[in-house]
Amino acid sequence: MSFCTRCGAETILKIPGGDDRQRQVCPVCNAVAYQNPKIVVGAIPVWEGRILLCRRAIEPRRGFWTLPAGFMENDETLAQGAARETWEEARARLIDMEPYGVYTLTFVNQVYVMFRAQIVDGQFAPGPESLETALVDEKQIPWPQLAFAVIAGTLERYLADRRRGRFPMYMDEISSPQGHAPRYPDTASASGPAAFPPISLKAVSGKKQ
Amino acid sequence: MSFCTRCGAETILKIPGGDDRQRQVCPVCNAVAYQNPKIVVGAIPVWEGRILLCRRAIEPRRGFWTLPAGFMENDETLAQGAARETWEEARARLIDMEPYGVYTLTFVNQVYVMFRAQIVDGQFAPGPESLETALVDEKQIPWPQLAFAVIAGTLERYLADRRRGRFPMYMDEISSPQGHAPRYPDTASASGPAAFPPISLKAVSGKKQ
Repeated sequence: MSFCTRCGAETILKIPGGDDRQRQVCPVCNAVAYQNPKIVVGAIPVWEGRILLCRRAIEPRRGFWTLPAGFMENDETLAQGAARETWEEARARLIDMEPYGVYTLTFVNQVYVMFRAQIVDGQFAPGPESLETALVDEKQIPWPQLAFAVIAGTLERYLADRRRGRFPMYMDEISSPQGHAPRYPDTASASGPAAFPPISLKAVSGKKQ
Repeated sequence: MSFCTRCGAETILKIPGGDDRQRQVCPVCNAVAYQNPKIVVGAIPVWEGRILLCRRAIEPRRGFWTLPAGFMENDETLAQGAARETWEEARARLIDMEPYGVYTLTFVNQVYVMFRAQIVDGQFAPGPESLETALVDEKQIPWPQLAFAVIAGTLERYLADRRRGRFPMYMDEISSPQGHAPRYPDTASASGPAAFPPISLKAVSGKKQ
């Protein structure tokens, strides 16, 4: 059961005129309640080569470790949102932000946009949504205690890219909570001509076409 | 005036506990109605070097020309959404899709994700939301009749990148309906260390860091 935000009447599930999928539609004022994917913005905050992680104080995945990330708000850019979330969760300020990964999580209707960044003055502390925060080197990353596949995948890629000294920008789909699309530009270019609609997308480098 | 989608009661504007900004909150069931940016997915469909444009049959900007683009739906990837919109508006099927631009339009709380793509078999036709569709070469682009700044900016960049034979991926803010962020990676790297929060973001190439 759902109600119209505009007039408060109970809505019904139907295909609006000129549309091709079911929506919650108000039978009184005809308002349509569209449901669209939400954007999650986050960062890989780095200080002297170590990565800032937060242990979640809230559900889902309370007690597990993550990179600072959260829902983008109105009236901010993607980078501003990632910086805001990093401040809220880890009390760190970011500079030298570079876009790094854009991931569609179809199973939860979210699009993650992750940035690489440096931490100003190496300062950080737990914000209200974190139990603790920590700067970790590669060997200290608590892989089995990471909260989400997209976070594990982002860290895996970041470490591999850092080893080879090259950071392309990625765009990928993550189609299940378990998958984390560990594909790199070097090995992912075998996508032949796709039928409509394309099923997934290879990672992207800025290389000459 | 706004109503709760969960119980139909009239909501009030207030800062929920643990939050720091005003939301529509239900005084009866405590549900919070979050408002977040929406994602628009679109494409630059190309056939034999010419670009497919659509003349809009719907508001806003009815009668003006645009690239196929529209709101991303649940249960699809960014690329699938761009392909779907291209089919709906221009009856063209896409292959060889490559992510090209990610633009935050802060003045309408939208994030555009634009792809470069080729048109299958050069087939296209107006869909229900288009008055007409046309394949145009560079000299035929109706610049004063383009519907949106983000579309003009995307086309401008695409043509410049094609001339130099290199297509990096861009991430930018467009902060007003007039602005279209005509910055290219070569000239946009003069962003010094930013204070928190960062104000904008330079375009991105996949170059060695």
